[in-house]
Amino acid sequence: MTGSADVYRTSALSLLARCDELAAYSTLPHGLIRRVYLTEEHRAVNALAAGWMAEAGMTTWQDAAGNQCGRLEGSVPGLPALLLGSHLDTVPSAGRYDGILGVLTAIAVVDRIHAAGVPLPFALEVVAFGDEEGTRFGRALLGSRALAGTFDPTWLDLTDENGVTLREAYAAFGLDAATIGDAARRPHSLVGYLEAHIEQGPYLEEASRPLGIVSSIAGARRFAITVNGHAGHSGTPFDRRRDALAGASEIVTMIEQTARGAGLIATVGHLEVFPNAVNVIPGRVELSLDLRAEHDDERDRVWSAITDSITSICETRGLTFDVHETHNAPAVACSPKLREAISAGITATAGDDEPMLLLSRAGHDGMAVADLTEIAMLFIRCRGGVSHHPDEHVEASDVAVATDAFELAVLALAARIPLAVDPALVEQ
Amino acid sequence: MTGSADVYRTSALSLLARCDELAAYSTLPHGLIRRVYLTEEHRAVNALAAGWMAEAGMTTWQDAAGNQCGRLEGSVPGLPALLLGSHLDTVPSAGRYDGILGVLTAIAVVDRIHAAGVPLPFALEVVAFGDEEGTRFGRALLGSRALAGTFDPTWLDLTDENGVTLREAYAAFGLDAATIGDAARRPHSLVGYLEAHIEQGPYLEEASRPLGIVSSIAGARRFAITVNGHAGHSGTPFDRRRDALAGASEIVTMIEQTARGAGLIATVGHLEVFPNAVNVIPGRVELSLDLRAEHDDERDRVWSAITDSITSICETRGLTFDVHETHNAPAVACSPKLREAISAGITATAGDDEPMLLLSRAGHDGMAVADLTEIAMLFIRCRGGVSHHPDEHVEASDVAVATDAFELAVLALAARIPLAVDPALVEQ
Repeated sequence: MTGSADVYRTSALSLLARCDELAAYSTLPHGLIRRVYLTEEHRAVNALAAGWMAEAGMTTWQDAAGNQCGRLEGSVPGLPALLLGSHLDTVPSAGRYDGILGVLTAIAVVDRIHAAGVPLPFALEVVAFGDEEGTRFGRALLGSRALAGTFDPTWLDLTDENGVTLREAYAAFGLDAATIGDAARRPHSLVGYLEAHIEQGPYLEEASRPLGIVSSIAGARRFAITVNGHAGHSGTPFDRRRDALAGASEIVTMIEQTARGAGLIATVGHLEVFPNAVNVIPGRVELSLDLRAEHDDERDRVWSAITDSITSICETRGLTFDVHETHNAPAVACSPKLREAISAGITATAGDDEPMLLLSRAGHDGMAVADLTEIAMLFIRCRGGVSHHPDEHVEASDVAVATDAFELAVLALAARIPLAVDPALVEQ
Repeated sequence: MTGSADVYRTSALSLLARCDELAAYSTLPHGLIRRVYLTEEHRAVNALAAGWMAEAGMTTWQDAAGNQCGRLEGSVPGLPALLLGSHLDTVPSAGRYDGILGVLTAIAVVDRIHAAGVPLPFALEVVAFGDEEGTRFGRALLGSRALAGTFDPTWLDLTDENGVTLREAYAAFGLDAATIGDAARRPHSLVGYLEAHIEQGPYLEEASRPLGIVSSIAGARRFAITVNGHAGHSGTPFDRRRDALAGASEIVTMIEQTARGAGLIATVGHLEVFPNAVNVIPGRVELSLDLRAEHDDERDRVWSAITDSITSICETRGLTFDVHETHNAPAVACSPKLREAISAGITATAGDDEPMLLLSRAGHDGMAVADLTEIAMLFIRCRGGVSHHPDEHVEASDVAVATDAFELAVLALAARIPLAVDPALVEQ
């Protein structure tokens, strides 16, 4: 294996410059970032990533779900692969690092290993997932679910804000919804999955540490809640009203109090009012709830308390409601073996003998991939814990040490596996 | 004066059929009504109204602000006019009677008087206002303000949801924003303004009376309130959040409690969340407040209490807010002389010796016209007090008695004024 690394190409400054380059692919004006699944912007960033993957010595392809993939063979062709990945899609008004930095770090690590000509006992693959955030179709992890083989065909009828179905969006992107199953990987073709990601929380910063290890990813459930009242003239007396927004506001406040009291996290991020006119009492409100906890049973107990309170609020106000669950991801524990490899990488580079263990309250592609193979994650300090916002920021020095640690984690894992591979594990 | 009335044409069934005909001009699908200022639908209903006005013996024109007008001369040409009017625009998902029925009743009354050849001591004019609800540009009474000469040229920079300015919308409608002032009427050219309107409240129905007289129109103030927090990832712990929607929800609940406690009416009808994504803590919320009271000082005192509470809620949550007043209409008392005429009409037709006096909690074009001339209003019972909703309903028998009473009110007013008109009042 040969190749000469451009020293700059895998440096922190290069990775940050690539983040800036990707940030330009957006459907929002004024430098705001919004890049969603199966759009021209998605196509464009896949092409950029494919170019960088090829530079790093990988063969590249776009899978049946629009995920951009690249592969560097190990000591012999056809070995099971260690997946390194994250996502290239964003929320609206996003930062430029969430997901993206993980993809670029993964490419840089492969680039270095390829350049060094180190023979590994596994292949390395980088996956840049096309949908993790769920911004366009309201359901997260579409790209990683497809790779994990847990893509539910009924999702093809999901629609975006313009009424375009996921099925139609695949066709417009040049993909065939009928072959999404081809994106699914087989467990025995994989060694595991590693992901580097900004923390999206304040704990590394507070502890003055650049890097940390994820213990587990909090389980999340998401619900679409509709509150139905009766629209009417804003001159209507209070005792004649069935104001859906007054009810919804009480519900939002209750959700915050209930979740806070129970020590877990709830967010109402989306809320729409109908008919939404200054002088009309709202007749209907649609709102989202995102509920996260370290333990699934605790989260489910709180959801049950919340539905009881919604019922009571609506009864008192003469309102009705209905609930639709849009996402349910159980909490996922990271693999001890892969965590150890990341720990070794952090210890060797960040001089941190006991790397900090962090619960990820944010969801990640790894939640989906965990259905397929073992996963682990490296967290990188971000400023103020701010994410999903244009102010999202990461220091170049932290990116540098993260890339080193991620590379060493791969090598630490490789050191545990003999190069002489059992031919039974080799697939053609 | 001659003319033979088509008996059907001024009947309740005809008026209701015309309401149905107008309801078809809408920008919403599925039979829902939304018809707003300076659109093709506005142009179409103006043309229909102009045709009906012409049938009723009136000369017709569209004024400089897009209000559709018609005039029937009195005993001699050029007499000051009694205005009869209401509006043809609607809220989103509207009913088919609010405003519209008042225009059609006014046309029917002129039709009958024209057909009967009764010489009046004043001209009769019908005005179908193009904007009362303020749906498109967020500022109500644009049509009636123009007629009253209180149109503020800075409003020309108001924009609709597509970013089209009011100035551009006038141009697209074939009007010149520079000549809006031409729509203003002179006080001495007018005798007064009468409007028939559905009650939009439950009190006539509860009292089993078809008609009532408006004592005064509640003063309304409207505010656009922006709550600013900080967008962030939905995995962020509560103590790190500055959630604009959590704050806004508390504000909506507080507004309801404060207004209810003070015995006046407040409505948050419009609320928008930014960036409005399931997994992003809301960074900004924009909401409207519509505040109404019989007495302006009471309303202003409650607004002051509400701003104090908003300040306190935002301080506690690390949020900021700003407020922009979008509408301020003082309470308007109806003219005793014109009220008496309406009372005479109701007594003669509905057999109601002491017609019910009602405060109008809803705003009306009369609020704007009151800056120009005396006003009074006839209220017509509506089912359940429901308005600004597709379920808005009025009985044909109530429309019949309302048309009779409105006609007799005009004749009662005419009876107070000698037919020999002072030439000084006649304008050419």
